[in-house]
Amino acid sequence: MKYFMIAILTWASLLSHAEGEHFASVGPITALGQLESSHNLNMRPHLRPFDIRRWQTKAGTSVMFVRADDVPMLDMRVVFNAGAARDADQPGLAYTLSNMMFQGTEKQTAAEIAATFERMGAQFSSSSARDMALVELRTLTDPQYMDAVLQEFTLAATQPKFREEDFQRVRNQELVGLKQMLQSPGAQATKLFWSTLYAHSPYATLPQGDLPSLQQMKPADIEAFFRRYYNAHNAILVMVGAIDEAKARSISETFTASLPEGVAAPALPDQLPLAKAENVHLEFPSEQTHILMGGLGIRRDNPDYYALSVGNEILGGGGFSSWLTREIRVKRGYSYSVASYFIPMQATGPWMISMQTRNDQTQAALQVTHDVIDAFLKEGPTAAELQETKDQVVGGYPLSLASNYSILGNLAAMGFYHLPADFLEHYPDAIEAVTLAQVKDAMKRHVRQDTWVTVTVGLTTAKHDTPPQP
Amino acid sequence: MKYFMIAILTWASLLSHAEGEHFASVGPITALGQLESSHNLNMRPHLRPFDIRRWQTKAGTSVMFVRADDVPMLDMRVVFNAGAARDADQPGLAYTLSNMMFQGTEKQTAAEIAATFERMGAQFSSSSARDMALVELRTLTDPQYMDAVLQEFTLAATQPKFREEDFQRVRNQELVGLKQMLQSPGAQATKLFWSTLYAHSPYATLPQGDLPSLQQMKPADIEAFFRRYYNAHNAILVMVGAIDEAKARSISETFTASLPEGVAAPALPDQLPLAKAENVHLEFPSEQTHILMGGLGIRRDNPDYYALSVGNEILGGGGFSSWLTREIRVKRGYSYSVASYFIPMQATGPWMISMQTRNDQTQAALQVTHDVIDAFLKEGPTAAELQETKDQVVGGYPLSLASNYSILGNLAAMGFYHLPADFLEHYPDAIEAVTLAQVKDAMKRHVRQDTWVTVTVGLTTAKHDTPPQP
Repeated sequence: MKYFMIAILTWASLLSHAEGEHFASVGPITALGQLESSHNLNMRPHLRPFDIRRWQTKAGTSVMFVRADDVPMLDMRVVFNAGAARDADQPGLAYTLSNMMFQGTEKQTAAEIAATFERMGAQFSSSSARDMALVELRTLTDPQYMDAVLQEFTLAATQPKFREEDFQRVRNQELVGLKQMLQSPGAQATKLFWSTLYAHSPYATLPQGDLPSLQQMKPADIEAFFRRYYNAHNAILVMVGAIDEAKARSISETFTASLPEGVAAPALPDQLPLAKAENVHLEFPSEQTHILMGGLGIRRDNPDYYALSVGNEILGGGGFSSWLTREIRVKRGYSYSVASYFIPMQATGPWMISMQTRNDQTQAALQVTHDVIDAFLKEGPTAAELQETKDQVVGGYPLSLASNYSILGNLAAMGFYHLPADFLEHYPDAIEAVTLAQVKDAMKRHVRQDTWVTVTVGLTTAKHDTPPQP
Repeated sequence: MKYFMIAILTWASLLSHAEGEHFASVGPITALGQLESSHNLNMRPHLRPFDIRRWQTKAGTSVMFVRADDVPMLDMRVVFNAGAARDADQPGLAYTLSNMMFQGTEKQTAAEIAATFERMGAQFSSSSARDMALVELRTLTDPQYMDAVLQEFTLAATQPKFREEDFQRVRNQELVGLKQMLQSPGAQATKLFWSTLYAHSPYATLPQGDLPSLQQMKPADIEAFFRRYYNAHNAILVMVGAIDEAKARSISETFTASLPEGVAAPALPDQLPLAKAENVHLEFPSEQTHILMGGLGIRRDNPDYYALSVGNEILGGGGFSSWLTREIRVKRGYSYSVASYFIPMQATGPWMISMQTRNDQTQAALQVTHDVIDAFLKEGPTAAELQETKDQVVGGYPLSLASNYSILGNLAAMGFYHLPADFLEHYPDAIEAVTLAQVKDAMKRHVRQDTWVTVTVGLTTAKHDTPPQP
């Protein structure tokens, strides 16, 4: 599917990838009840208990492993605490390194690496976001393939070669991509929102970097960042698949032994809320004004996580029946989509609302949004709304763990954000336990419009506030 | 890798996916010589002869199959002659149908379909471009999985349910995506280029459609388009994998028996060259001006294909040493990337050049481009350049067929564009046989600057033609 995937962060994506920006999921999450197709395969998703095995390799890497024998495949993910938050004064560095992964080893080019994996029926990828950098592998577990694939993967991921010519090509693509991206009002709004809300803290910049920084970057910088952050003490390794624990242990030892031992990245400095609300407008000749508004939310380990998840879902989550969608889209047609979301991270991530609207409706849309939030914080959802949302979240939960890959994502988030060992089993109960009072209280404490950043990118028009249509 | 992939169309992508727009590949294609990693796996790409089995199913679908036992997987692609060129007066219809595929069946939702395949270790996708619409499957060949997967895939791909709510969601995403896309100068340039060059012919519109058309679209339109074009006589089915021919035949019979019999789509009307060159400028407040220039190229079955491939590669193909890159990027720094490419299709596709440059360098960049082309058409490449390019193309050819998936893509293109049965084996010889005279002659006949469309999207600045720097 190649249509533009819109970042509607549902509870499922918040759960599996707390670093939500790049990992948003789309679409309704519904119950497994009707699922009849694989009745003859005995492949029902195993819900609980999750038998998560944990250990630490000799090199010092934390490992989580779930055995899943249904399909003869292994999924493996290595998470490094090496996202854009580590860029320091070189915005785009983590991102560029991630793009340089699997571009070459001493003996192979990028095309050869890709062809090698493809011929062995294996897939690999690298990616990064503000908090994390990932390398991933999916392989058949038949030893005829797996052992060679793992050898290749270990080599390619731990002994990469950052050749000048590959660097030039990758950087060139990034520059073109960044220039094109920055010509869109949406990207400008994103850039302004994060830079205003986070000032000089590590989340202030675009993970994709900026032009001067990319232009000055050298392969030696990539090399240094790799040596500093892609190490055994700064990594978490997760595996889900049809191997036994002994094999999983052996794989984890081999892989992490190839990494430099290194040291874990230090904790990120946190960001204080702004002293007062700030409005930032960028005059941009687009038909639609892009709006991003919001403030600091929570860190991933905040105990308000469940109440906020439910509250956010009702206020502006994925469904068509959210308060914001009802008022902004359905009743007034201001925007095709409006969504609110948390991005809980290592340091305090944002809680924000995004929409686009016709330039002349910008002020009206902002006003309605504030009114909806005011009403929500005052009245809160109804008991029926609360129950419906909890049912939907809990009912859809099994499907969010229906595949090895989704379990892998959850394990990685659990490991990276230090969630409790029973997080997966506990999740539905924790959601079910959320009360109306908790939702109202948590939302009131965390949704603080008086310290918000409101970014508008579009054309200023005469402010004729369109009257709300019933 | 999630950086923006730039559409540098190399010969390899032209070869495997003649409908190049959406299928561009990136990066150097190099020889297999150094590939040492899988020496113990007996997985060398089998180059020749390709034992392509062909048959027609009872339902009337042409099938191509290559047995590849190296990995216990099967790749399958169904190509429908149902791309955006069939949109008629509803731009975006083929695209929307493609996005609606795998969104549901009578009994399953999109999320359930996705979870079902994932749990069985299978992958599916749908996509579309101007000429083609594809549905694809990769499955393990162990009958324990494959039979159930094929049953699911056949059901999901041939009996889709286009529910109103899914349609609303998909269309909504498309609208948001289209609006965002059209705010970028690059997309505006693309839209203007195709609409100007193709006037009222089937390639005139954006495959993504336009806002009014999307807004008026109904699930019934999707349903009608599906019934009309996703049928056995309008499809080609290709398979590569570890099954025997009997199994392949049985799979093809089962799948195509589930399709309506239908009729093949009629040939597309062709487009005449413009009477004279046309310049189209869109004033757009971007720092960079996006330039697309070019005219009609060739249909996929044109015998000049080989000479033009080589000629285009030298003039403006992927490498850093192309004439255009040398003059535009290396010598003058006008653009981070400049590329020329053919998009040979069912009807005559374009030959075009794309670049972005600082607004005040636009005229200079256009002038240099014309000068380079003039020089190329007059002098042609040197014998050394020709040989080097042919060596590079022929040397890299094995790698472009190194995986089952790439073979699949080539088979699909062969079937769809009616290429000769020995196309794959013949390709390196055909490239090797291209002479200097043929390159010059073919380029001269097909690269006709006097009937070109030149689209510039950016800010007009005082025309101080930057003098070329040595």
